[in-house]
Amino acid sequence: MYDLVIIGNGPAGISAGIYAVRYGLDTLILEKDVISGQIASTDIVENYPGFSSIAGMELMDKFKEHAENVGVVTEDGEVIDIKSNGDKKIIFTNEGEIEAKAVIIATGANPRHIGVPGEEKFAGRGVSYCATCDGPFFRSKNVAVIGGGDSAITDALILSNLASKVYVVHRRDELRATEVLQERAFSKNNIEFIWNTVLDKIVGDDNENGVVKMVALKNVKSNDKKEMAIDGVFIYVGIVPNTGFVDVDKTQTGFIMTNDKMETSVEGIYAAGDCRVTPLRQVVTAVSDGAIAAASVHDFVKNI
Amino acid sequence: MYDLVIIGNGPAGISAGIYAVRYGLDTLILEKDVISGQIASTDIVENYPGFSSIAGMELMDKFKEHAENVGVVTEDGEVIDIKSNGDKKIIFTNEGEIEAKAVIIATGANPRHIGVPGEEKFAGRGVSYCATCDGPFFRSKNVAVIGGGDSAITDALILSNLASKVYVVHRRDELRATEVLQERAFSKNNIEFIWNTVLDKIVGDDNENGVVKMVALKNVKSNDKKEMAIDGVFIYVGIVPNTGFVDVDKTQTGFIMTNDKMETSVEGIYAAGDCRVTPLRQVVTAVSDGAIAAASVHDFVKNI
Repeated sequence: MYDLVIIGNGPAGISAGIYAVRYGLDTLILEKDVISGQIASTDIVENYPGFSSIAGMELMDKFKEHAENVGVVTEDGEVIDIKSNGDKKIIFTNEGEIEAKAVIIATGANPRHIGVPGEEKFAGRGVSYCATCDGPFFRSKNVAVIGGGDSAITDALILSNLASKVYVVHRRDELRATEVLQERAFSKNNIEFIWNTVLDKIVGDDNENGVVKMVALKNVKSNDKKEMAIDGVFIYVGIVPNTGFVDVDKTQTGFIMTNDKMETSVEGIYAAGDCRVTPLRQVVTAVSDGAIAAASVHDFVKNI
Repeated sequence: MYDLVIIGNGPAGISAGIYAVRYGLDTLILEKDVISGQIASTDIVENYPGFSSIAGMELMDKFKEHAENVGVVTEDGEVIDIKSNGDKKIIFTNEGEIEAKAVIIATGANPRHIGVPGEEKFAGRGVSYCATCDGPFFRSKNVAVIGGGDSAITDALILSNLASKVYVVHRRDELRATEVLQERAFSKNNIEFIWNTVLDKIVGDDNENGVVKMVALKNVKSNDKKEMAIDGVFIYVGIVPNTGFVDVDKTQTGFIMTNDKMETSVEGIYAAGDCRVTPLRQVVTAVSDGAIAAASVHDFVKNI
């Protein structure tokens, strides 16, 4: 029986692994995919302190190399269910059962994609899901924000301080975002709202490193189509935590609720990173969550 | 008037600066000393994800270089007082007054030193104040833990999983640590308690890179002295947050109380890193705190 099984091999999971092994815990990380975490699909990361500018994949490789140097063991396995049995947890994967004294859920969350042509192709090259991450690449440029909720408007406000012009494209004729965010957005001279409109297509250079040049929009009332020259498209149609397999207290949208020690509602089950309720979802917050969760597991396991 | 003044130039302050400037906030970091944060005086850091092993000073240099690349501005100044005046904060330093819409306190905390001969000389070369940081350097070695409170016993337990033998040296004949920690420590075969005893001297090699070889102990009842061969000395006689200049809600020992957005009891004043109440004090938790505090300040300032 392991002391700790960590589910997920992104920044939160790897950091938890590094800390857990250093605490002397017999630890296993289960990874669903070889490419781990949203970070690995992020073009350039410029806000993980210590690295002024680094490719997301390269940062992920550094995390993995760090974990290997410490002696963290990783295995393939997609987790289907977790059951508690007295002082032990049984983790059911697509490959069998694993027992552990404690579990850290670090499975992350993914932005919901719209699924329009060009969205996948230009991801990281003009298509983004995070203004905090990518906004500074669009200083003095023109960007479109897709969505009308809190995330869309929060990030439109971030972008309005950086970009020349921000178009907020929303499918309805009013925003879903909280009032205060709306007021702030409406008072900005360089934010323009395009109502009753959805994104139809993202167009860019056709070559391998081509970037976004234009969006095609469609008015859902008139069905009118129009094209607009643009340097970046920021998409906010929700994010989806990967937490369906675990039965702990969650929000309606599936984010795991924890206290500041990363404890969930079930003793011995912890959560870290994007999959939990947290005020900010960044590499730097995920690695911190992982470290705290490992420290809490150390306390817990030594106490059994 | 600045949008934000950050007090402290350690990992928490620098991370807050990087995030704040990226959010488009007009930001100033005030630093009391050129050498910033406990990290800069830590010999080797092996638990900041992404760097398997790096000198504390070198990591700090990377943080500062990152901040400079982003355009963070730093000035010398020791803060004496902060006053709120409507929507602005007035920061009184030894050099004058500075105005800002928001303030982040990131002044850290320092382990209290005992002041015995050898303590300063061998800091980072056998003398440590953190088992989570330095424990793994003492695998299969013999260490002494000085202190009898929660921190001392928590770290003695961490060390007991790594070192061959852990001597807990305590000035009284019973521990101050919580019962559960005591029970766990008493049940460990490789933890031995040396009661009614204080550290008198730390002795090591006399050359420039010399490491700890021995401690001299004194029994406070009998005044008997004895020497003990040892590879490491972990000292836990309290840590002291640098928060005397700010009037917000704090614990009895001076740690600033925040919510998970890093908001203190005073609107517009935030705290990040070791100076706040937090379950774990590490570089990785400090940089995360700084990022979250900057995101909260961005929300706050845009809302004024």
